[in-house]
Amino acid sequence: MTEAHDAVEVILAKRDRQALTDSQVDWVVDAYTRGVVADEQMSALAMAILLNGMDRREIARWTAAMIASGERMDFSSLSRPTADKHSTGGVGDKITLPLAPLVAACGVAVPQLSGRGLGHTGGTLDKLESIPGWRADLSNQQVLDQLEGVGAVICAAGTGLAPADRKLYALRDVTGTVEAIPLIASSIMSKKIAEGTRSLVLDVKVGSGAFMKDLASARELAETMVALGTDAGVTTVALLTDMSTPLGRTAGNGMEVAEAVDVLSGGGPRDVVDLTLALAREMLLAAGVDHVDPADRLADGSAMDVWRRMIMAQGGDPDADLPQAKETHVLRATRTGVLTTLDAMAVGLAAWRLGAGRARKEDPVQAAAGVELHVRPGDTVTEGQGLLTLHTDEPGRFERALAALADGVVVGEPGTTYDATPLVLDRVAAG
Amino acid sequence: MTEAHDAVEVILAKRDRQALTDSQVDWVVDAYTRGVVADEQMSALAMAILLNGMDRREIARWTAAMIASGERMDFSSLSRPTADKHSTGGVGDKITLPLAPLVAACGVAVPQLSGRGLGHTGGTLDKLESIPGWRADLSNQQVLDQLEGVGAVICAAGTGLAPADRKLYALRDVTGTVEAIPLIASSIMSKKIAEGTRSLVLDVKVGSGAFMKDLASARELAETMVALGTDAGVTTVALLTDMSTPLGRTAGNGMEVAEAVDVLSGGGPRDVVDLTLALAREMLLAAGVDHVDPADRLADGSAMDVWRRMIMAQGGDPDADLPQAKETHVLRATRTGVLTTLDAMAVGLAAWRLGAGRARKEDPVQAAAGVELHVRPGDTVTEGQGLLTLHTDEPGRFERALAALADGVVVGEPGTTYDATPLVLDRVAAG
Repeated sequence: MTEAHDAVEVILAKRDRQALTDSQVDWVVDAYTRGVVADEQMSALAMAILLNGMDRREIARWTAAMIASGERMDFSSLSRPTADKHSTGGVGDKITLPLAPLVAACGVAVPQLSGRGLGHTGGTLDKLESIPGWRADLSNQQVLDQLEGVGAVICAAGTGLAPADRKLYALRDVTGTVEAIPLIASSIMSKKIAEGTRSLVLDVKVGSGAFMKDLASARELAETMVALGTDAGVTTVALLTDMSTPLGRTAGNGMEVAEAVDVLSGGGPRDVVDLTLALAREMLLAAGVDHVDPADRLADGSAMDVWRRMIMAQGGDPDADLPQAKETHVLRATRTGVLTTLDAMAVGLAAWRLGAGRARKEDPVQAAAGVELHVRPGDTVTEGQGLLTLHTDEPGRFERALAALADGVVVGEPGTTYDATPLVLDRVAAG
Repeated sequence: MTEAHDAVEVILAKRDRQALTDSQVDWVVDAYTRGVVADEQMSALAMAILLNGMDRREIARWTAAMIASGERMDFSSLSRPTADKHSTGGVGDKITLPLAPLVAACGVAVPQLSGRGLGHTGGTLDKLESIPGWRADLSNQQVLDQLEGVGAVICAAGTGLAPADRKLYALRDVTGTVEAIPLIASSIMSKKIAEGTRSLVLDVKVGSGAFMKDLASARELAETMVALGTDAGVTTVALLTDMSTPLGRTAGNGMEVAEAVDVLSGGGPRDVVDLTLALAREMLLAAGVDHVDPADRLADGSAMDVWRRMIMAQGGDPDADLPQAKETHVLRATRTGVLTTLDAMAVGLAAWRLGAGRARKEDPVQAAAGVELHVRPGDTVTEGQGLLTLHTDEPGRFERALAALADGVVVGEPGTTYDATPLVLDRVAAG
């Protein structure tokens, strides 16, 4: 039993820059889940948290209260160690698709409970749903069986995990309170801890296409999440990775699946391969598996084998043709020079407007819509050369997609030097 | 027509410390009134306004948008100038009751559109409703007729004035966003400007029993409101007055009416008489009437005549006995010494808990409940002497009322010197 509190009392405390007591946190999260605290009260509290912050103890308690709002899963019966990965979301971020089967091929079970996309960042489930027959919804028992039998599962998070977070996330989305580090950290970690993984690698994105635009705030988020995971007994490590430019050569649902298959076949864009391997190594390390090099498993085709079995286990046909867009439009260079900017947010917005993403969670997405990138920053381009190809089933969408790209694709003077940002900017582990 | 905006866009702007544009303010106030902006969105915006503030232009535009959400009244047909008074709310603040008839007796029409009490501060309408037969609800035409015929009217503000404010005030009350100077100032001034008075005197309370606990924030609120009124063509002046100790000798509904009648009869507590005269002089000055001394109208009984006609015009019997509480309890001094503290908030809370106030706006109030004060700070008291008498119809309420008073009534060492706070702390007029 938690002590009785009052919504206004809790709001006033945070509004006036006090730390909430454990009892206040327990009460307000539980009362909000039960509908005793109204949406308009929680949104005022969320804004006060965003503007006035929370200390580590408050965030840990808030996370624990969200976990306590629902069920917990238990993977301890599995014969293999478990490791999970979470990305804070970026443009062209299809890493989960090759990563989960790759790590499973190295002997670690990967329970990847994922979400759908909202806004300019794509959702892993949306991408996989472009594979004919594939289904995202599994029971807890099906998840366990697939982890034991195949080693990897990517599916929808059940509604039983952290229902407080589900309700709060929907509220934050419409009240301008998404970008609060305590709320982002507790949202991600409550689901991951409730999910029951023993180790977790976080890919915290930094740059124009990410929630965190600068390294300092990304590091704060990473440190907060690593501390939360560690305190909950989950071996947790975070990589801070660049999201100023899209990952790989595509941003879209079906196109990103094709790119993932390229990687699993031993090809694929360099940055996608590098980040997949970097994250795989962290997951293996966190899970205590140190005798396997994931690059070997990529090269010998065993990761591809797990991919095929994983897709088939969820009803998908790994050999089926992926959908092709009805219409394409090529954006060409208007001058000769060096590509200095290929902005992740601009490309993400363009893909969204082409139909790859959704504005409201009940909207459908187009499997074939998206942006194909033919060049990378630093490349020399010549006037008239195709830089990007836009794909959509509805040509009426090209205009707004092109508008999103207006300032995001920049060709500088010939000979301009371009300093590439490193892909992995930093690593945060438990102190 | 206002430009189309989006609730999240407006919230993010204020969250990120930007000034809202005129178009954003117009849109969000109108859309909230129409239900297009949801309560949970407006509460997040209100919290952002509370924490990040608004500049004078934003507050003026917000006030104008709230006025535009409803109807405006027009007193220009009256044969006399009009002056109104607004108090930000205090404990024992019955000043409106003698003030309105007094100023009317001096030749200025007083349209006093008032509210009911919420929390520890009493409401003028609740007080007058302790007079048998008196009714608060008048049509706009009845208000005009009574102003012309009697010169003073105290009645409920119609629902047509600033409906946006009505909706927003109810939301702020449950979301911890009451104490925002931009929102307090625009709430008060939107109603007063829409009401159509030509001059306005503000009584801004400062101290434990007031919204504004310190002089600096009270001055900021006063300056904001004076600027808003002046810019809208209303001659506006504010007095900053002490609310660390209750006004007069009673806090309760019927008891305060009796005290007001004492003042109109030429008696009454010194502080109530002084503040009534100070505010009357400001109202006459603002209305351009400089040939009458309100003290004469109090002394010659003409203010009492207007009071009787004003009460009768609204169905009340000025000669009826006021309700008496069924139960009383005397709080006695436990030592001999000097009364050093008689805290306004403590007395207000006690009166509220005795039944004089309401927790929710649909609750009833007791006409006879309240606190009677037998001593003032600085008085010498002897052990066993009655300091306060608590009145209620329900004796079960005494315990919580006494708990509210525990730290609020302090008797210090005999011979302790007490420095009385001046009643009027400052005056703010248009620069």
